[in-house]
Amino acid sequence: MEIKPLGDRVVIKKLEAEEKTKSGIVLPGSAKEQPQMAEVMAVGPGGMVEGKEVKMELKKGDKVIFSKYSGTEVKLDGEEVTILRQSEVLAIVE
Amino acid sequence: MEIKPLGDRVVIKKLEAEEKTKSGIVLPGSAKEQPQMAEVMAVGPGGMVEGKEVKMELKKGDKVIFSKYSGTEVKLDGEEVTILRQSEVLAIVE
Amino acid sequence: MEIKPLGDRVVIKKLEAEEKTKSGIVLPGSAKEQPQMAEVMAVGPGGMVEGKEVKMELKKGDKVIFSKYSGTEVKLDGEEVTILRQSEVLAIVE
Amino acid sequence: MEIKPLGDRVVIKKLEAEEKTKSGIVLPGSAKEQPQMAEVMAVGPGGMVEGKEVKMELKKGDKVIFSKYSGTEVKLDGEEVTILRQSEVLAIVE
Amino acid sequence: MEIKPLGDRVVIKKLEAEEKTKSGIVLPGSAKEQPQMAEVMAVGPGGMVEGKEVKMELKKGDKVIFSKYSGTEVKLDGEEVTILRQSEVLAIVE
Amino acid sequence: MEIKPLGDRVVIKKLEAEEKTKSGIVLPGSAKEQPQMAEVMAVGPGGMVEGKEVKMELKKGDKVIFSKYSGTEVKLDGEEVTILRQSEVLAIVE
Amino acid sequence: MEIKPLGDRVVIKKLEAEEKTKSGIVLPGSAKEQPQMAEVMAVGPGGMVEGKEVKMELKKGDKVIFSKYSGTEVKLDGEEVTILRQSEVLAIVE
Repeated sequence: MEIKPLGDRVVIKKLEAEEKTKSGIVLPGSAKEQPQMAEVMAVGPGGMVEGKEVKMELKKGDKVIFSKYSGTEVKLDGEEVTILRQSEVLAIVE
Repeated sequence: MEIKPLGDRVVIKKLEAEEKTKSGIVLPGSAKEQPQMAEVMAVGPGGMVEGKEVKMELKKGDKVIFSKYSGTEVKLDGEEVTILRQSEVLAIVE
Repeated sequence: MEIKPLGDRVVIKKLEAEEKTKSGIVLPGSAKEQPQMAEVMAVGPGGMVEGKEVKMELKKGDKVIFSKYSGTEVKLDGEEVTILRQSEVLAIVE
Repeated sequence: MEIKPLGDRVVIKKLEAEEKTKSGIVLPGSAKEQPQMAEVMAVGPGGMVEGKEVKMELKKGDKVIFSKYSGTEVKLDGEEVTILRQSEVLAIVE
Repeated sequence: MEIKPLGDRVVIKKLEAEEKTKSGIVLPGSAKEQPQMAEVMAVGPGGMVEGKEVKMELKKGDKVIFSKYSGTEVKLDGEEVTILRQSEVLAIVE
Repeated sequence: MEIKPLGDRVVIKKLEAEEKTKSGIVLPGSAKEQPQMAEVMAVGPGGMVEGKEVKMELKKGDKVIFSKYSGTEVKLDGEEVTILRQSEVLAIVE
Repeated sequence: MEIKPLGDRVVIKKLEAEEKTKSGIVLPGSAKEQPQMAEVMAVGPGGMVEGKEVKMELKKGDKVIFSKYSGTEVKLDGEEVTILRQSEVLAIVE
């Protein structure tokens, strides 16, 4: 099943961030806040979105940071993904 | 009875999504959240909508994902459909 | 008494929808939700409305679906009608 | 004392609507809802209002319907009038 | 001390309105609602205000009606005045 | 430490207003409302601000009136100053 | 790990401000309000952002003041940073 976002939307899948304290202790996933890092799964075509020209700057595979609570969570083929507007993505991490 | 949406609106009918857990168990419809997948039943003409040119990208028969709580539910000929703006449709699924 | 809506407004009068269940039982009006189907009684001239050009696509006699809670209800000559903007009308039914 | 509304505003004075039930009984004013019918007393010049060109379509003496709760009520020479924007007037009644 | 409003703002000073009932009894100030009539004390230069060209139509000495709760009250040289935008002034009274 | 406001922002420092009653009694600072008069300490460059051309009309040293609750208070070198947009300044006092 | 903000966003890292009272006593960090001074770590490319051309005026290394509660806090490599729009930065401090 393939998903094609409309307009300036992108589909992202949250990544399990590994967080190290300064002393080097790795906190497991269950002890962390809701993840804010994700990988881009699909990118909409952009173009005119609500009367404004939008150029898509994200591409599939990008690792991004997004504001938790942004977008809409949907379950596809048993996987939870989030669909949100490109403008809701805060930054690319490399 | 035929329904013709105005402006950038589309009429969709919710699909009963089948959800599999990773272990392969299929949850019946009654145990799931409100469906977010739908089929497009009718598409408005687009054009100038609140001062902005809107080009319709959806067509009848498309399977789409939409944000639950979007749009207005109406009952036509005993069937529940949802009327919403194209911009409230998140993605097409193929 | 004739009513002439201003700008992009239309006057509609709610219709008593007849709803059939799948087994064919007709629910009387008192058992149904607030009606969402209406007939257009009068249509404003359109034109520049809040700085945007609006072309009226509805005409007197159209059967339409509108979001309940839209518009303003007024009583004219003992009849309840609703005045709302054309953009609040969701679809035409034929 | 003469009142000159600014911009796209109009001054209206509520009319005491007479309402007939279907059986022909006339309800006196005290038993009715807040009146929604009014007569236009004065009309502003229109022109550029908040960056948008507004053409005044109402004139003194027009009978209009307006949304209750619209506008600002003021008392002039002992008379209660309402000042509101032309766009808050719903329709003309003739 | 001279006050020069910025942009499309005006400085007004509330007037003590004298209100007559139909029987001719004059209600003293303490029995009335918050005054809504004022005299214009100073007028800003207008021009580009938040990206829109504003032409000032009020001048010093105009008697105006304004919506109570509009604007900001400040005390200058022991006098209470209100600073508000010209668009918040409803009408001129002559 | 020098502070350079961005865009259409200005930095102001509240002044201790001296208020006289009509009988000439001076109320000390502690008995008054939060001050609304301030002196301009620094002025941003203006220019394009959220898509609108803004020309700065304030200059360092201007005495201004501003709406209490406007802007953001920060403490610099032990002094409390307020950073706000020029459009939030109501008037210049001379 | 490198972070590249999108659009008109910047990444900042809060600075521990040292605050002196007039008598010269330094309050330690734990007794102060949430810091409002930060250093710019990364700057987005600007360009068209929601239909408006944005020119980035901040550069890496700038010391800035920002409104507390602005932006989104994220933790990168164990460090807390804040991602916010350039327009949410109030001033540069030199």
